[in-house]
Amino acid sequence: MLTLLTDFGLQDAYVGVLKGMIAQIDSTIQVIDLTHQIPPQNITQARFVLMTAVPYFPAGTVHVAIVDPGVGSARRAIAVAIGDDWAKPAAFLVGPDNGIVSGVTSQYPILGAISLTTPCFWRTTTPSFTFHGRDIFAPVGAHLAGGVPFGELGTAIDPATLVALDLPMPMRVGNQIQGCIQAIDQFGNLITNISAADVGENWTIQLGTRLIASCKTYRDRPVGELVALIGSHGWVEIAINSGNAAHAFDIIVGDEVWLH
Amino acid sequence: MLTLLTDFGLQDAYVGVLKGMIAQIDSTIQVIDLTHQIPPQNITQARFVLMTAVPYFPAGTVHVAIVDPGVGSARRAIAVAIGDDWAKPAAFLVGPDNGIVSGVTSQYPILGAISLTTPCFWRTTTPSFTFHGRDIFAPVGAHLAGGVPFGELGTAIDPATLVALDLPMPMRVGNQIQGCIQAIDQFGNLITNISAADVGENWTIQLGTRLIASCKTYRDRPVGELVALIGSHGWVEIAINSGNAAHAFDIIVGDEVWLH
Amino acid sequence: MLTLLTDFGLQDAYVGVLKGMIAQIDSTIQVIDLTHQIPPQNITQARFVLMTAVPYFPAGTVHVAIVDPGVGSARRAIAVAIGDDWAKPAAFLVGPDNGIVSGVTSQYPILGAISLTTPCFWRTTTPSFTFHGRDIFAPVGAHLAGGVPFGELGTAIDPATLVALDLPMPMRVGNQIQGCIQAIDQFGNLITNISAADVGENWTIQLGTRLIASCKTYRDRPVGELVALIGSHGWVEIAINSGNAAHAFDIIVGDEVWLH
Repeated sequence: MLTLLTDFGLQDAYVGVLKGMIAQIDSTIQVIDLTHQIPPQNITQARFVLMTAVPYFPAGTVHVAIVDPGVGSARRAIAVAIGDDWAKPAAFLVGPDNGIVSGVTSQYPILGAISLTTPCFWRTTTPSFTFHGRDIFAPVGAHLAGGVPFGELGTAIDPATLVALDLPMPMRVGNQIQGCIQAIDQFGNLITNISAADVGENWTIQLGTRLIASCKTYRDRPVGELVALIGSHGWVEIAINSGNAAHAFDIIVGDEVWLH
Repeated sequence: MLTLLTDFGLQDAYVGVLKGMIAQIDSTIQVIDLTHQIPPQNITQARFVLMTAVPYFPAGTVHVAIVDPGVGSARRAIAVAIGDDWAKPAAFLVGPDNGIVSGVTSQYPILGAISLTTPCFWRTTTPSFTFHGRDIFAPVGAHLAGGVPFGELGTAIDPATLVALDLPMPMRVGNQIQGCIQAIDQFGNLITNISAADVGENWTIQLGTRLIASCKTYRDRPVGELVALIGSHGWVEIAINSGNAAHAFDIIVGDEVWLH
Repeated sequence: MLTLLTDFGLQDAYVGVLKGMIAQIDSTIQVIDLTHQIPPQNITQARFVLMTAVPYFPAGTVHVAIVDPGVGSARRAIAVAIGDDWAKPAAFLVGPDNGIVSGVTSQYPILGAISLTTPCFWRTTTPSFTFHGRDIFAPVGAHLAGGVPFGELGTAIDPATLVALDLPMPMRVGNQIQGCIQAIDQFGNLITNISAADVGENWTIQLGTRLIASCKTYRDRPVGELVALIGSHGWVEIAINSGNAAHAFDIIVGDEVWLH
């Protein structure tokens, strides 16, 4: 099984081309779309979507994630194996080394990482300057899902050298936690980087000067009012019942929140 | 075979998470997207799309339909078997009991209905308050498609207690039929609740004060003009050749039409 | 394996209905979406997407392409086999005879063409006037992918009679080439009809009065500046680094360019 996450959109041939390449290598691979509608070049959003999807897939699934503003530059192409046990890796991640996999690797142990330097698993030994998805990532992902051993895909690299996105970590200050908005979903819900594990039953979150008491569901407040709850992904989330909180308050990823 | 219909959109991880859950339960299930772009919480639109898609799928297909503004409230989670014969049900429907399946059940006999009360077929015995798609509907659908008998998924309920959407039925008044717009597609075509079976060869439909004579194809009238025809789904439909009738006349679902 | 390319969008039931029809005929066929978001009735865009996707699929793939403003009129429904060898056709194309396959057939030899006149491979012998995708193209494509011999699907026709889109061919004038914009992708990148094979290492392209020197990647110029390069599809392409060239310069398909 192999999943695809890109910012290619669904209007052009690019996604179809990836699937054609995969089918040419092994037509028995089951391909699942995570999304192709990451806002162009938004690695932060891609990192969040990948991090929240991976835990729900069968062990050993290959996740190919391609949001790659540095395509054609010197950035590395990588694959990462995660989990506790080489006998049954939780998942494999394939993509550019630009932080896109750093959400997942913050949640799982890394078994190993490689730089994709073995051209016999690419579409061609002279990949294009603009479409490594077709020429490197999809073919390597297909070979990996089809049974090629992880280590043969390239050169082992130190996982500590993988690029991480520069999101601040939540910080405990007295009995408060300072966090930030790590993602905004398509409904305008604001997802913080504060985990359900860090909060108790009753809490209040502060966004700018607004204080929002915790509840269980979007409908616990009247239509149009702010709600704060533990989202289905396990993070503290701020939303407007039947509204768009990001638009209403002009919030962007990285904005600060305080949890009391 | 299992289909998915939701209002989750294609930008976030939600749809991928459903597919991961299904694959974890049974990776041989073939999953087909009906749509994930129902306007948020628009049960009426979801009801129409489901009703018009189900007849084209193989007998026994499991259709999981999740447009669920009441998630986390007391609304029931249900499964419905439809068709003439328990030996070969036409289809199974899984979703919230909010009327989303009521279009299909207006077209087929109901073989049985159950309330999904057996947590061993859920992802977890403590489902989230906001994402029953992941925690109940997709897992139950996967178990059903994978061979778990319908009756084991929960408690039998009286089909007469299923929530139906409150759309008026077409009414014959003399040799005229009073009907309404039951759906508007993405091209702005206005789909009435008057069936092809109720009309003859030549008819005229009245929308407000406009009278529109029947024709066969969109192109039977000049570009920009109103056409009325039997749509491919079998309902009387009003459109503008190469235009958007819903925008042009500010029509909404429920607006009245008269067929002469 | 069968691919789908349409202008049906993803909001309504139409795409699901196609997949249901295919599964009814042969549920083992692997169906891949090229795109369903061709701008409504834009045959030129569909022709380009199909042409750039087909080369990446396994030999023998059936590509069903439905952008069909003439549905219900007298235009032919066709299937075309392409490649060098009847023993292993490169691909099969199924769709309306309106030029949608003419990009592919400009790149491959045609082995044979037929008019789809055999109703036993349709959904019904009385197809609707508005949805030949469901009633003719998807069923015929499914039967072809499922093993029905090409010739049985209808009546052989002369490939020279297939409709071709009326795009000007690039023309060599001294050591310059006059070409045109043949497609605009969703990022606003302008794709010309001048092939990589026709240009050397260093060249300059003229769009209106602007002269743009060739480079390798979008990032070879500062953000917001014009770049010209060989796109991943093999055509000369004009873009703005992190911008939308089509909007910035109000370019449409067919606009002239000169390559120096």
